[in-house]
Amino acid sequence: MGAIREKGPVTLLDPEEVPDDALVVPIAMMGAPTVLAEKAIGDKEYKTLYDMVSQFFGKKIYALLPIEAGGVNSMLPIAACARLGLPLVDADGMGRAFPELQMVTFTLGGINASPMALTDEKGNCVIFETITNKWTEELARAVTMSCGGAVSVALYPMTGKQLKEYGVKNIVTRSQKLGEAIRTVKNCTDDKSPEEHFLEFSESYKLFKGKISDVLRETRGAFNFGKVVLEGIGEYKGKKAFVEFQNENLLANVDGEILATVPDLICLVDAETFVPVTTDALKYGKRVYVVGLKCFEMWRSPEGIELVGPRYFGCDTDYIPVEERYKGGTANV
Amino acid sequence: MGAIREKGPVTLLDPEEVPDDALVVPIAMMGAPTVLAEKAIGDKEYKTLYDMVSQFFGKKIYALLPIEAGGVNSMLPIAACARLGLPLVDADGMGRAFPELQMVTFTLGGINASPMALTDEKGNCVIFETITNKWTEELARAVTMSCGGAVSVALYPMTGKQLKEYGVKNIVTRSQKLGEAIRTVKNCTDDKSPEEHFLEFSESYKLFKGKISDVLRETRGAFNFGKVVLEGIGEYKGKKAFVEFQNENLLANVDGEILATVPDLICLVDAETFVPVTTDALKYGKRVYVVGLKCFEMWRSPEGIELVGPRYFGCDTDYIPVEERYKGGTANV
Repeated sequence: MGAIREKGPVTLLDPEEVPDDALVVPIAMMGAPTVLAEKAIGDKEYKTLYDMVSQFFGKKIYALLPIEAGGVNSMLPIAACARLGLPLVDADGMGRAFPELQMVTFTLGGINASPMALTDEKGNCVIFETITNKWTEELARAVTMSCGGAVSVALYPMTGKQLKEYGVKNIVTRSQKLGEAIRTVKNCTDDKSPEEHFLEFSESYKLFKGKISDVLRETRGAFNFGKVVLEGIGEYKGKKAFVEFQNENLLANVDGEILATVPDLICLVDAETFVPVTTDALKYGKRVYVVGLKCFEMWRSPEGIELVGPRYFGCDTDYIPVEERYKGGTANV
Repeated sequence: MGAIREKGPVTLLDPEEVPDDALVVPIAMMGAPTVLAEKAIGDKEYKTLYDMVSQFFGKKIYALLPIEAGGVNSMLPIAACARLGLPLVDADGMGRAFPELQMVTFTLGGINASPMALTDEKGNCVIFETITNKWTEELARAVTMSCGGAVSVALYPMTGKQLKEYGVKNIVTRSQKLGEAIRTVKNCTDDKSPEEHFLEFSESYKLFKGKISDVLRETRGAFNFGKVVLEGIGEYKGKKAFVEFQNENLLANVDGEILATVPDLICLVDAETFVPVTTDALKYGKRVYVVGLKCFEMWRSPEGIELVGPRYFGCDTDYIPVEERYKGGTANV
């Protein structure tokens, strides 16, 4: 990454190392992943956000953290820290990725998304102070669309104490380890297959293996909505599956049976390399595994299910943990 | 007005009475007039805007002024001044009304619309700092729509010096005099008809007199777009006319001939009472005069025409001053 090559490595802090009264701030891009992928993230925006937040509180930012552990938003805070000379906290607000900004453990902890700072690559700046985190989402999303579909934001400014209480800890190191394991899975010399290795170290449930036969996609309200359709291969030959998404995967259906829903993680990974395939990178003909992973425990509370469960996203099913659906399922081979 | 009954009268300042370094701020509602008419304007919003602007500049607001001299935005600053105990400056930024926020003489003077403060009746607050006044309009309009189509705003914070240089002076007293003249036009005892009196004191050109036979209306992007169609009465019997509008009237066409366009004022006034009929109060069957008034001189500069001339609004005609169109016209009797 350019920022690290230029400025040197970034210090990763364990949440416990952050003083209780320190000001820590998640930093992210907001918008549809297809647009995020096309827009360069400039140095200027990090500095602008830093100045907006510091000025608002009359206090320096102690450290940054990722708001989510997925896509560009898992990497961007590292570059921001390198550029600004700040440490990164090993925590996020989701333990995965979600499409809307109120969908964080911080909301469950009663922490405000606002004051939220937003800036675009042209230099427009907006500060939101809203009555709920859902309103922050509404208003910031409207501005994001007007700014061309992707902007940089700093939100949920919080104390070290709040972070320790409600953050999902060790998500950066966990992501790093998972990445290392994926890169080396084919070099394993024991009796297990790469697939077995992958399912083991990623603690995933194998839900399907197939070839992408269709991708239905719509960019609406600065979100990527859609559905990917899969035709079974290997032991799944003759079966069909589909995965619905809104930026992130929401529901996996195999041969008419729901095998996983949000807030549990549904991941498509390349059948050869085990590298995750994000919703903006879905391509006809690609061979993938569909796997399910347990979400962070806090999401399984009634408040968590209300905030990010299947019904919020318009999926007509109750939340059933992926491990229960998997055990009870008939679709898995 | 309730605010004045409760708090006493508001001091009206001549612009020359405002110190050069004083902070003065126009205050207004933003949104479609049809929505503005339905939403009550609360005391809370005035105070919120006052606090947002004062806090931003670390300086107290010296006085408020209207941004435009039309509809709810001509009266609202008086109520705000009464509630906040502030004087009102006898000036505005248009000398009429326009639908978009960059359409002010202050833009011609290079004054920034931002920092712009916005709040809704629920308590959501947003501060914009944008690279151009057109961007302020874009982003604030998006938030206005998300907030339900109408919000309260304070924008173009400026010094007394800037106000004196670029404001349209004496617009409040002029509006007051016009209102008085309209209320008493029928009591005149000389030989002139009420119509003659009205045209004389309002310095209007009579473009048409007719009955509203159709109103085409569309609320889009927090604007009221539309067209009002008129059938001639009296000396205009057998003729047809239409007036296009975007919140405010843009173009008057009488029997196929354009008789007035923005930035000149096109007003519909009740044929009996001479009270203006705003675009949100147009009703089938109503008898009205269509009159044209010269706009503020600054609007007739090339920069003014570019900002608020007919082509900006998508009307395919050059700007020709209303007095020239009137003289050359064949439609006037």
